[in-house]
Amino acid sequence: MKDLIMTEMMTKEDVTAMILSAKKTAGLTWEQIAEKIGMSPVWTHSAAMGMNAFPADKAKLMVSVMGLPQEAESVLAESPTKIWEQAVPTDPCIYRFYEIVGVYGPTLKALIQEKFGDGIMSAIDFEMSVTRVENPKGDRVKVEMTGKYLGYNSW
Amino acid sequence: MKDLIMTEMMTKEDVTAMILSAKKTAGLTWEQIAEKIGMSPVWTHSAAMGMNAFPADKAKLMVSVMGLPQEAESVLAESPTKIWEQAVPTDPCIYRFYEIVGVYGPTLKALIQEKFGDGIMSAIDFEMSVTRVENPKGDRVKVEMTGKYLGYNSW
Amino acid sequence: MKDLIMTEMMTKEDVTAMILSAKKTAGLTWEQIAEKIGMSPVWTHSAAMGMNAFPADKAKLMVSVMGLPQEAESVLAESPTKIWEQAVPTDPCIYRFYEIVGVYGPTLKALIQEKFGDGIMSAIDFEMSVTRVENPKGDRVKVEMTGKYLGYNSW
Amino acid sequence: MKDLIMTEMMTKEDVTAMILSAKKTAGLTWEQIAEKIGMSPVWTHSAAMGMNAFPADKAKLMVSVMGLPQEAESVLAESPTKIWEQAVPTDPCIYRFYEIVGVYGPTLKALIQEKFGDGIMSAIDFEMSVTRVENPKGDRVKVEMTGKYLGYNSW
Amino acid sequence: MKDLIMTEMMTKEDVTAMILSAKKTAGLTWEQIAEKIGMSPVWTHSAAMGMNAFPADKAKLMVSVMGLPQEAESVLAESPTKIWEQAVPTDPCIYRFYEIVGVYGPTLKALIQEKFGDGIMSAIDFEMSVTRVENPKGDRVKVEMTGKYLGYNSW
Amino acid sequence: MKDLIMTEMMTKEDVTAMILSAKKTAGLTWEQIAEKIGMSPVWTHSAAMGMNAFPADKAKLMVSVMGLPQEAESVLAESPTKIWEQAVPTDPCIYRFYEIVGVYGPTLKALIQEKFGDGIMSAIDFEMSVTRVENPKGDRVKVEMTGKYLGYNSW
Amino acid sequence: MKDLIMTEMMTKEDVTAMILSAKKTAGLTWEQIAEKIGMSPVWTHSAAMGMNAFPADKAKLMVSVMGLPQEAESVLAESPTKIWEQAVPTDPCIYRFYEIVGVYGPTLKALIQEKFGDGIMSAIDFEMSVTRVENPKGDRVKVEMTGKYLGYNSW
Amino acid sequence: MKDLIMTEMMTKEDVTAMILSAKKTAGLTWEQIAEKIGMSPVWTHSAAMGMNAFPADKAKLMVSVMGLPQEAESVLAESPTKIWEQAVPTDPCIYRFYEIVGVYGPTLKALIQEKFGDGIMSAIDFEMSVTRVENPKGDRVKVEMTGKYLGYNSW
Amino acid sequence: MKDLIMTEMMTKEDVTAMILSAKKTAGLTWEQIAEKIGMSPVWTHSAAMGMNAFPADKAKLMVSVMGLPQEAESVLAESPTKIWEQAVPTDPCIYRFYEIVGVYGPTLKALIQEKFGDGIMSAIDFEMSVTRVENPKGDRVKVEMTGKYLGYNSW
Amino acid sequence: MKDLIMTEMMTKEDVTAMILSAKKTAGLTWEQIAEKIGMSPVWTHSAAMGMNAFPADKAKLMVSVMGLPQEAESVLAESPTKIWEQAVPTDPCIYRFYEIVGVYGPTLKALIQEKFGDGIMSAIDFEMSVTRVENPKGDRVKVEMTGKYLGYNSW
Repeated sequence: MKDLIMTEMMTKEDVTAMILSAKKTAGLTWEQIAEKIGMSPVWTHSAAMGMNAFPADKAKLMVSVMGLPQEAESVLAESPTKIWEQAVPTDPCIYRFYEIVGVYGPTLKALIQEKFGDGIMSAIDFEMSVTRVENPKGDRVKVEMTGKYLGYNSW
Repeated sequence: MKDLIMTEMMTKEDVTAMILSAKKTAGLTWEQIAEKIGMSPVWTHSAAMGMNAFPADKAKLMVSVMGLPQEAESVLAESPTKIWEQAVPTDPCIYRFYEIVGVYGPTLKALIQEKFGDGIMSAIDFEMSVTRVENPKGDRVKVEMTGKYLGYNSW
Repeated sequence: MKDLIMTEMMTKEDVTAMILSAKKTAGLTWEQIAEKIGMSPVWTHSAAMGMNAFPADKAKLMVSVMGLPQEAESVLAESPTKIWEQAVPTDPCIYRFYEIVGVYGPTLKALIQEKFGDGIMSAIDFEMSVTRVENPKGDRVKVEMTGKYLGYNSW
Repeated sequence: MKDLIMTEMMTKEDVTAMILSAKKTAGLTWEQIAEKIGMSPVWTHSAAMGMNAFPADKAKLMVSVMGLPQEAESVLAESPTKIWEQAVPTDPCIYRFYEIVGVYGPTLKALIQEKFGDGIMSAIDFEMSVTRVENPKGDRVKVEMTGKYLGYNSW
Repeated sequence: MKDLIMTEMMTKEDVTAMILSAKKTAGLTWEQIAEKIGMSPVWTHSAAMGMNAFPADKAKLMVSVMGLPQEAESVLAESPTKIWEQAVPTDPCIYRFYEIVGVYGPTLKALIQEKFGDGIMSAIDFEMSVTRVENPKGDRVKVEMTGKYLGYNSW
Repeated sequence: MKDLIMTEMMTKEDVTAMILSAKKTAGLTWEQIAEKIGMSPVWTHSAAMGMNAFPADKAKLMVSVMGLPQEAESVLAESPTKIWEQAVPTDPCIYRFYEIVGVYGPTLKALIQEKFGDGIMSAIDFEMSVTRVENPKGDRVKVEMTGKYLGYNSW
Repeated sequence: MKDLIMTEMMTKEDVTAMILSAKKTAGLTWEQIAEKIGMSPVWTHSAAMGMNAFPADKAKLMVSVMGLPQEAESVLAESPTKIWEQAVPTDPCIYRFYEIVGVYGPTLKALIQEKFGDGIMSAIDFEMSVTRVENPKGDRVKVEMTGKYLGYNSW
Repeated sequence: MKDLIMTEMMTKEDVTAMILSAKKTAGLTWEQIAEKIGMSPVWTHSAAMGMNAFPADKAKLMVSVMGLPQEAESVLAESPTKIWEQAVPTDPCIYRFYEIVGVYGPTLKALIQEKFGDGIMSAIDFEMSVTRVENPKGDRVKVEMTGKYLGYNSW
Repeated sequence: MKDLIMTEMMTKEDVTAMILSAKKTAGLTWEQIAEKIGMSPVWTHSAAMGMNAFPADKAKLMVSVMGLPQEAESVLAESPTKIWEQAVPTDPCIYRFYEIVGVYGPTLKALIQEKFGDGIMSAIDFEMSVTRVENPKGDRVKVEMTGKYLGYNSW
Repeated sequence: MKDLIMTEMMTKEDVTAMILSAKKTAGLTWEQIAEKIGMSPVWTHSAAMGMNAFPADKAKLMVSVMGLPQEAESVLAESPTKIWEQAVPTDPCIYRFYEIVGVYGPTLKALIQEKFGDGIMSAIDFEMSVTRVENPKGDRVKVEMTGKYLGYNSW
């Protein structure tokens, strides 16, 4: 019963596995894939991992660029449920960002409030990029985020 | 015994309370304080909160700018122990950044590795800024981080 | 040292205690206080508890309505840091709302996405009310929330 | 042994998977399915996800509307065991409701007690709706809950 | 500032401490106190511990029976916020009840559903007693709970 | 290798699945099954779920009453390892009992000590029943537990 | 108010502090104290720490042996609430015992069931000793526990 | 790929399952198995569960006594990774030992330090036995542990 | 669908299983494998377990030394996601290192700051060795770590 | 009562505070203090923090070197209870060591077993040093630990 059902419904995880396989075979980078579908690398990777939904036209493009089966198109366009497994991430590369939130979280809050008033930076109406900055003492990773300021409502 | 001791040793928490009090009385913003000591607002707030150590000259300057007692100078220069209380932050403004790490953590990792190789962005040799970006649909918060790339050693 | 400092800075917790004391002495309900300052009862209670910031004029009004010391005005207007202690609330009245989020969370998500697209209801640009609905089988509590729809950005 | 057994008993999860598959094939929304079985969209989605039990007549109707196998009828009518995986939900759309309970939980409690006495809003004798409210500054999500007031017994 | 406030407002914890002190001085058992105010021992202890609110007349009676200060009357009548510290209780006497819920929880659920339908036993419209049952092999503790059955709503 | 082994050893989970399947096919209630094997419904359900061990004669009877394979007899008689997954149960029907332990745990302890001395109610030499009590304002669930009193040893 | 109350009621923690102070002043070991009151060292230490209740005659003896104030007698005789702070103990000496329960817990269970049937060793009707065993390769710690076997009830 | 690999490597879990199956078929107790291989029952069960490594000769003996495949010999001799799933065990028989560590942990520490100095009992150079002690009031479980005393180094 | 995909993509876990199998068949130690590929034993084991990435030439060498399929080469060279399952490790051999961090963590921090200033030892630009030190009182394990000092940036 | 007691007993925390105060006043480093008492810096700091016990002669020396009150001598010599607050440390300098245990824990275990057999490195009969290693690419922190190998007993 179960097997019957599970082979009928393609999931976001299935499509992620297909994309990773196709990417490896084709020898593409995320930057190249992003360029082919006209989106940024951060968003493209995140959506390919199943953490964001593809707009209809981008889903279509992704299917053709990566050579995915037709059924994948609607799966790419579905709204994902975003789950992460551990309250404190263990991978060192991800942990460092968690640490930055722990150490500088109250500072980000204080400066947002100083510049805007009582509110937050949206993580929904939001975008991000990662770039490499050359530096003689060792190149640096630059991460830029912008999100819409949302002021608390009083009513 | 205890009380005797505790009044003798000034702590980073004591100095933070003095700074907040002086800041309120003087009507200064973090940006203004930062400018007076010649450092960035993010670093200044973080160090004033006791999450970073002041270099000797900046500690001296801070004491004079904020009118702190002499003893505060050495306290500002001490290496802090960085503690945050809850694995998952509750304040909405800070939580949004935690959420970004949860949702985009694997993406940051994938792109750092694509651009640099197997490694991480340092959270120690690191800097950050917060700026306000005007936008007709609602102004936006821009957060920029740069940290030195550190490649994993193999030996 | 410590004691000296702590008596100098009035905190949101101090002001909350003063409001509760004044409210008890005056025999006022939250609904009456809310009416006197021209805001809703939900927002008024929440801000009095230190979980929301009073706009400048409302802080002034609150101080006069409740007979608070002058210094409380600026404290009421400060942006709060919102902290709750336990991942799972224990008080039965609050737990029932937590349970509703556990049981109906995926449903709220599915219907928001069906009606709006891929996005969320803002908890910042948000308002809420509580009313009593008479019912012959036992009166009912009605809770209404409205929050701005925010669609996920793709970039 | 195991496999033999597991293919014999259809579970609520199996039926949920069948409903999702049939819904996709038929191109139906939750609102349309709800209307076909004469129930509200919130309740219908929740029961289809296996978080509520279908009354006998609604189970029969659901089987015929969605073209499910006969055996699904009794499965839909079973009392579910309601489990959610993480004390703090990670999906941003669901988290916002969790945050509202954290921020406004004590307020909901205070106002229920002011209006009714010492007690709670039932999460069992309970109903909920989600509607879209048009607004020139951006449409809003409206969530309405009503639950029976239950006063604490003293004995 | 703080001290000033805290001595003005009597809390439920203060009153609990006064009751325990008066009970010890007077050499009363909970059963005797319960009888004097015409309530059951379980409810009386729980309300004296600050986990339930006294109805107005019982608060008055409690104050006179235990010789509490007048201000305690309104404190006893306040709705409490019910908090317990540890998800898993450590005291052996309390842990055994936690263990019973762990081992027999699914059984209680199955039998309630078999006898009543899909629903729960209310923990609000609820009462409980503890009695000693003589037994030649060793006396036994008998705990009886009754709570109103609440059926899940479908709407 | 693995599969070979796993099909050879029948587990308590396998037998529970067989019992649930047979119960559904035969249209039996737990009360009827309990009566057929001459045990109480609470114990019978719990043991059928694999949370208690069947005495030899009851295991034999259960196999014949439910039409289980011969091998199930020894499995029913094995001592189980009792595991529950979540420190705080999520199902509302089970949670209410957890809440009762949280709210009334210290009361149960105080009254057991008042009536018996320093000790506990055993959760091992223990029995429990669930009954339906008719009531014009809505029927009530009655849960009765009795366990042997065990006094702390001092040595 | 609070201070008034707290100085009136002596707690188990107060008495533990007095015992530790008197023990240090008198230069007594736990073994010597235990001998003076005619109890075992394990029980004596545990009760002195406030984790067990003194029988009336032993409480009297303890007060006289340690030179405690009269009020301590009734405090020593009270039933304690047993609380430990961390699910996983950190002190290495205590952790090793936790580790033994982790590694050998299923073994203890299997052998108890092999020798007695389905049941447990009571931790209430229980006693324990610690002795030093000389050994040329390094002396050894010997811990002996005995607890009454309690068989699961079936009913 | 995966399946291919997994059938090639026999794991400790596979061998544990084989031992349990052979033990049931042969009708042996742990005590009998232990005697056949000339080891204690506690150690034998623990090693058979995969929580300790068999010395080479005992592994050989175990394979012949239990009729295991030849490949099992080297698996039995491997060093295990000791994992337990829950910080607080739920099975009542194991929990009671956890409770003993919670209640008496500080006592064990105090007495070890009184008899030996600053140090611990090793859980590695360690042994344990379980015996049944007849008693007219109900037989008792006796657990004896001895571990080498290890004094803290100062350097 | 799923099965199709999963057999196509070889994972780090698959390759680890192949290495362990080949190592056992060939009777090699980690030290010998490390020597064959010209790396240290600590790094070699860690990378073979999938916790570090092989540089391209070492991946090629590893494939030939261990007789792995060609496809394994690129898998060995991939950047791993480093995950560990339990915040507190349970295996006694690993726990002792966790305990050392708990007991001596603040000491390591204090001495690093005394010798270098405000900063950390990198766990990325890092290496480690394990050696056996003969000692008449019992041989000793020596673990040496060196990591680059990274000073906190102030900006 | 309480206050009376607490001023009578000096605790390890009191002595730690006195040492930190004296160290600051005297301008000593840990290395200098260690040299004055003839112990290593790691051990000296750890014992001064209250995480290790001073041997009698070293306690005497420490009191005279740091100018502590006489009563501190016996406090320094007491066995400490070692507690750390958070399962996952937050301070970046300490976290890096936790991360090393997470990433390399299984490797340390594998190599200890390869070199010694089935056992562990003792964290009790243990010593550690921190040194600065000059390096043209940036100086490095070197941490060396040695602990006695303890082989698992089989019995």
